Order: sequence, then C-alpha cells, then structure tokens
Amino acid sequence: MSTISRALMAHPAAPELAREERAAEARCIEACLETAQVCRIGADACVEEEAVAELRECLRAEQDCGVVCAATAQVLARLGFPEPGDGRAVLVPLLQACRAAARVCRDACRRHAEVYEHCALVAEACERCVEACEALLARRS
Amino acid sequence: MSTISRALMAHPAAPELAREERAAEARCIEACLETAQVCRIGADACVEEEAVAELRECLRAEQDCGVVCAATAQVLARLGFPEPGDGRAVLVPLLQACRAAARVCRDACRRHAEVYEHCALVAEACERCVEACEALLARRS
Amino acid sequence: MSTISRALMAHPAAPELAREERAAEARCIEACLETAQVCRIGADACVEEEAVAELRECLRAEQDCGVVCAATAQVLARLGFPEPGDGRAVLVPLLQACRAAARVCRDACRRHAEVYEHCALVAEACERCVEACEALLARRS
Amino acid sequence: MSTISRALMAHPAAPELAREERAAEARCIEACLETAQVCRIGADACVEEEAVAELRECLRAEQDCGVVCAATAQVLARLGFPEPGDGRAVLVPLLQACRAAARVCRDACRRHAEVYEHCALVAEACERCVEACEALLARRS
Repeated sequence: MSTISRALMAHPAAPELAREERAAEARCIEACLETAQVCRIGADACVEEEAVAELRECLRAEQDCGVVCAATAQVLARLGFPEPGDGRAVLVPLLQACRAAARVCRDACRRHAEVYEHCALVAEACERCVEACEALLARRS
Repeated sequence: MSTISRALMAHPAAPELAREERAAEARCIEACLETAQVCRIGADACVEEEAVAELRECLRAEQDCGVVCAATAQVLARLGFPEPGDGRAVLVPLLQACRAAARVCRDACRRHAEVYEHCALVAEACERCVEACEALLARRS
Repeated sequence: MSTISRALMAHPAAPELAREERAAEARCIEACLETAQVCRIGADACVEEEAVAELRECLRAEQDCGVVCAATAQVLARLGFPEPGDGRAVLVPLLQACRAAARVCRDACRRHAEVYEHCALVAEACERCVEACEALLARRS
Repeated sequence: MSTISRALMAHPAAPELAREERAAEARCIEACLETAQVCRIGADACVEEEAVAELRECLRAEQDCGVVCAATAQVLARLGFPEPGDGRAVLVPLLQACRAAARVCRDACRRHAEVYEHCALVAEACERCVEACEALLARRS
C-alpha cells in the first residue's frame, strides 16, 4: 500500500466500509500527481525543442493539465466533509474539468508522440488520469 | 487599468475586437486571485478561533475554494489557444467548478458571518467570484 | 483598505500593536499575487510570440517566478503561529527564494522590455515584488 | 524507472553525463510530491480530530509544507536553463525553504506521532523530503 493510501486510511473520517472508495480516491490522487508532474516536465521539454513554435498547442495543454490535475489532487485530500452533497457540488465539476484537461492534453500530445518521447509519456499519463477521474465520477454521480 | 488588464492587453493574441472579452477575463482573474487569498486567510483565522471545532465546514470550504480559484486564475492566464473548442473544453467545466466552490464557501461562511468578520469577508469575496465566473460562462457557452 | 488587508486584520491572531506588520504583509501578499499572475500572462505571451525560441530564458524565469510568488502568498496567509521562531524558519528562506525568483525574472525580462510590452510589465511587477519581499525580510531577520 | 524519471530523461536538455543528476532530481521531485500530498491529507485529518484545537501547530506546519513542497516540485520540472548560475539563484534558496518547511513539519508531527497515525506518516514523509532536498543541495552548492 502506498504512503498516500496509508495516509487516506489513517484519516479519522475513513469508515471501515469505505475502504474500496478510499482505494479509488488514492488511485485518482496518484494519477493526478503523476500526470501534473509529467505534464510540467513535458511542457519544459517542448520549450527546449528546436521546433518549439510547432509545439505551442501541446505546451499549453500540458500547462493547463498540470494546473487542473494538481488542484484536483488537493481537493481530493479533504475527505471529511459530513454532507456528501457539498462534497459532490465541488468535486464532480472539478473531476469533469480534470478529465477534460487530460483528454485535451492527451490528444494534443499524441499528435507528436512518434517524434518526441516526452509527448508520448505525457499522452500515456493523461490517459491513465482520464480513467482514474472516470472511475471516481462513476461512484459519485 | 490594472496591471493584470494591461498584461492581458499586451498579449500578442489579444485582438482589438476582443477588448471587452479581455476586460471580462481580467475581472474574473482578479476576483479569483482575491477570493483565493481571502479564503486562505479566512481558513487560518478559523483554525485560530477558539470554536475551531464548529468551523470545520467553513474551513474546508475555504480551502477547496482557495485551490479551485487559484487554478482558474492560472488557466485564465493562457489566452492564445487557436481553437475556441479546445479552450472551452477545459475552461467551461473549470469555471463551473470554480463557481460551485465559491457558492459552497459563500453559503458555509454566511452562516457564521455575524459572529466572525473574516467569515463575512470571505462570503462577500465568494459572491463576487460567483458573479465573475457566471459573466465569463455566459460568454463562453 | 483592500479586502486582503481587511481579512488580515480580521484574523484573531492580529494583535493591535502589529497593525504596521500586517500592512507590510498585505503589501507583500498583493505584490506576490499580482506578480505571479502577470508572470503567467507574460509566459503565455512569450509562447505566442513568433520569436518564442529567443524568449526561452524569459519564459522559464516567468514560470518559476509565478510558482514561487504564489507559494509565498499562500504561506503569508497563515499568521497565527505562536512561536515566531518556527514561522521564521520557513518564511525567511521562502521570502529569499521569492526575491531571487523575482530578481532573475526581472533581469531576464528587462533584456526584452523595449521590444515586448508584456516583458516590460513583468519586469516592473517583479521589481515591486523584490521590494516587498525585502521590506518583510528586514522586519523578520 | 518511474514515469517521472523517464520524463526527465526524455527532456532534450538531459545530457548523457548528467544521468546521475537527473536521478537525484527525480528522487527529490517524487519526495516533494508525496510529502505535499501526505501533508494535505494529514492536515485534513487534524481538522477532523476531536482534539483539533491541540493540533493547530501541526495543521499549519502541514499546510506550509504542502505548499512549499508542491512549489519545489514545479520548479524542479524545468531543467533546461542554459546558465547554471540562474538556475541556482532560485533553486538553492527554494530547496532550503523546502527543507526548512519539512523539518518544522516533521518536528511538529513527531510530537503527536504516538497518538495519531496520520501524524506519524507525515513525519516519515517529511524526513524523506529533508534528505532528498539535502542530497540535491549538496550537488548544487
């Protein structure tokens, strides 16, 4: 079990029965953190490439995705909200924004994946992030 | 004109005709930045209050709102996306998440606004942020 | 008085005698928030410029400065630490990092300020941020 | 090799000879990301505890550490700076701030580690982060 999973399970609001829910949250948090960082490294790699002027769309999609994934991981750290209603009011549109940012970024990077390994890695990370957001959205909506 | 407005107008992608659009974006950015910071100060004020245990809902709503507003301001800094479609794919759900976070936080803080001035200030900032998000959403959707 | 100043003064840890200290913190917070956002807009403007390949140093300095200024504003939101020692242990090196990031960014942008208005605006914002960090550092160290 | 390591190695600025340097950066990035998230979860766990009023110092140290670690990971994503001087001007004080935030948080959480497992987990993560920052600082200064 990862340190993040263990921290989520050590949260006093984590009820026994919600163990599976916590595991899905841990997977989504880890996907968001990894995707955010791989996007930031990919964006800087795009800046460094000679063909930077052709990579603008990629670069921006990676920056947006980095921001939205990082924000989603931060909100997912707070589990203790008593009313599921309130938690859902913010988390559902935020997960939708995160899924959208990861899709846009995956598609932009795939177009360059054969030329640039960093774009291929970003596209793969984004795909895992889309899946993790969808898994949580399926439980919440 | 604020420094942020001037920076938006100095962006090479800012077309002359979009001056009004840029002004709406500047207002939304400024509302998001101010709300994020007032939420963070309000959250720390809740932590400091003797009655912190009764302010948990407020505190969490302020933290979530701080995160989502800050992310929205960051994404709004990038105007140069060539296809409006892509920009809309991320920005619309993100503005919806921001509006939701600001509403939840406004409502949570209003319940304590008569006792704590910091809660009143957060509620006011959130209300302005809701309006600024709605103004941009009305233009984009 | 700005909303951020009012929120700082409404914090229960703000003692009467520290009113001047709070004002210096509010100025530093506002400089950090504005600089962070102007840097993000400036970075995206650099990406959009035809000569993006010549603006790499600027672009990265703006991104770093945006990150460090935003983090500094977040830490400055928490005033209530009982021991000044602990607060100083984190805040002093963080303000030093913020001042360094703003100086590097100011110097990188000044070299392009005559050609690009967005670089000139970033350089000006960074200069104000350097001064605001120094004013707080002079009080803390 | 982790996805983050692979992304760093795919960056066009990663010279062959710097492979060991890239590995140290990857370890520091991963420690920062994990610590930031475990701190955020730990902070929300402190908010949820009945004894929240006794955990204020912990809670704030966790929030500060979360912010500074996240900022450090973001700056570490940008490797391509041509002059080592500039990179060092920001990164060295930022790594020092990160190490300071992780030490303060580790010490605050250790005092509660026997009662709260989440505090113990945060203290362990912070200790790893201190070591990773020191390893990078030893190479840079």
